[in-house]
Parts: sequence; C-alpha cells; structure tokens
Amino acid sequence: MSVIAIHPLIDTQRQVTGAAFSGGTLICACVEKPVKVRTRHDLAHNHVCGCTQCWKPAGANFSIVAVVPTKDVDVLENSDKLAVVDPSALILRHACKECGVHMHGPVEREHPFQGLSFIHPERFQESGWAQPGFAAFVSSIIESGFDPSNMDAVRSRLKELNLEPYDCLSPGLMDYIATWTAKKKGVLPA
Amino acid sequence: MSVIAIHPLIDTQRQVTGAAFSGGTLICACVEKPVKVRTRHDLAHNHVCGCTQCWKPAGANFSIVAVVPTKDVDVLENSDKLAVVDPSALILRHACKECGVHMHGPVEREHPFQGLSFIHPERFQESGWAQPGFAAFVSSIIESGFDPSNMDAVRSRLKELNLEPYDCLSPGLMDYIATWTAKKKGVLPA
Repeated sequence: MSVIAIHPLIDTQRQVTGAAFSGGTLICACVEKPVKVRTRHDLAHNHVCGCTQCWKPAGANFSIVAVVPTKDVDVLENSDKLAVVDPSALILRHACKECGVHMHGPVEREHPFQGLSFIHPERFQESGWAQPGFAAFVSSIIESGFDPSNMDAVRSRLKELNLEPYDCLSPGLMDYIATWTAKKKGVLPA
Repeated sequence: MSVIAIHPLIDTQRQVTGAAFSGGTLICACVEKPVKVRTRHDLAHNHVCGCTQCWKPAGANFSIVAVVPTKDVDVLENSDKLAVVDPSALILRHACKECGVHMHGPVEREHPFQGLSFIHPERFQESGWAQPGFAAFVSSIIESGFDPSNMDAVRSRLKELNLEPYDCLSPGLMDYIATWTAKKKGVLPA
C-alpha cells in the first residue's frame, strides 16, 4: 500500500464512471442549510490538481476538479452563504463561507476557458460522474508544504493510478490554450 | 525521415557532448564586427524550447537554450551592438541589433533563476557542450503559427530524439521553482 496520499476518494476506493451521467446536485459540507448547486451537463476534463488555489478535503494533496458549461450551473439553495474567494483570479471560486467548500468557479473574463465553470465532482450527491483522467500542476503541491524529496514517489503513484502527471495542464488542453492565443494574435486563421 | 523540423542542429546531425567542456566563445551571426561573449563554466539544463521569446535560427520550431552562472559571462567584443529585447521580461535577452541573435540573457530580479544567464550554445565556436536533454514549452510553438493538428507528430519526434516533451519546464526544474516559492512563503524551512 502506498504511503503517498493523492486524495481520499482515489487512495482507498476507486469510483466508477457511469454510462449516462448528465449532471447532478453538488452539496457543501455544512450539516445545516447546506449550499446546493445543480449542474445539467456531463463533466469535461475531470482531473486531479495540485495547485494551491483549488479546494481540497482534509488529507488530500490533490483536488478533484472538472468543468461544465456555466449556463448549465444553478445555485439551488442557500446562495447567501457563497462568496468569491479571489475576485482577481481567472476562476471565480464561489466558496461556502461556513464550511469552506468551493461550490462553483466560473471563468468570466476573455480566456479559452470563458463560459466554463470549475466544480469538484466529489461534492455530487449522485455517483457515476466521469473519473479523473490526468494530474495537473503536480509540482505545485510543494507550494503547500509537501516534501520535495517525495516527488518521485508522487509521480510514480499517479502513473500507477493512470493519472499521468503534468506540471501544467495536459498536452491537449495546453495545445487548446495555445491555439486560442495564436488565433487571437492572428498567427493562425480564426 | 521525419517531416517535423525541430532544429537544424538536431534534425540532420546530432552533436556530441564532450567530456570536459568548461565554457567557450559565443559569436553572433554578423560577418563584420560580430558580438563575442565568453563563458567560463559548463552548461546546465540545456534543452530545446518552443516558447515565442527565445531566439531560433531559420527553419527551427525550437530553440536550443541552456544556463550558465551570470558571473561567468563576459562580453568580449562589440558590446555596443547589444540591446535588451524586453526590459520587463524575466530573462533580459541581450540581442545583436544587426543580426538579431540573442547572445546572453541574465535573470536579475528575485527568482529561483536569479544569477543565471540563458545562452544559445549553438553559437559557441567550440564543440563539446552538453547536448539538450528535454523539450520545454512544446505547446507554445502553436503561438508562432505551428499547425495544432501536427502536435502529436512533434511530441512523437521529440520522444524519438530522447527529448521528453513538456509544456512547461522539466519536472526537476518545476519542483525546484516550487521549492523556492514554498521557502519564500515560509511553508517549507529556508
């Protein structure tokens, strides 16, 4: 058994991707008056992320995070408990002010991810959502205090879990961002 | 034979790393009064780079770039032909105003790379310098107009050349930067 904690949902039990997940209800960690957010779309690009901005549960070195179209996200209950963590960030992470869970994070400014919202699918009441497919911003876990001398073990464990480790996003997403930038600069046809 | 051009020095002929390279003289492309820069130290972290900032020769999608300690770099001749490309950039690329070749690029501001200078070892008059060991900022070649649909072929070719492709820097360098940041933030002991 590995001593490297990736995320509780991944370390001890692997969830299963359902055939026809098309959204569900995200719920924060509050026992009373939890925030509830509904999505009406399947996840895209679900992955584990080592950055210092994403919400992670206790014991996790990585978050689990995916995107859905912002137009398919609605706050159902207790929206008054939500506040934006950092209004200057690309991702406007709306966190529950009481329990701290990030419930949805739209990208509103001009960017290749504009129109998408970042969510943490582990907060779904439902199962069957697409499982994470890669690991992003792996080196960044050091910025949360992770011991740099254990990074080889982290990357080995991620590969063992079929979560290919990257220190930025996956090649497909990096190419997507670069293509958007090239079109905006006019070096590729729009 | 691959149709994917990485860099002329790599596509057609592979140079050899010498046992005891300890610096040499970099020369720009001017026939008259070339700029000459001397280094008195072996290269570190030599790699090919797809970013849009580094100087690349004609026909190259990637630059070849490495670092040496700034204290071991001296401009020997025709320093009046040098100008900094972008004074706001992390790397202060000193380019020849006539031929455009970047001759040395010190990092002066507070950063994990402070005290290092970026150079293009293909400009050495001498041979034997350490050969490139990986490929950085691969997706960025799209930002120079490279066809995004050929990126799989680029990454395959780089792997074939033992230049593991990354869309940022190599894991070792990314961990180094993250460790510096963690120490600066105080989450790891300095």
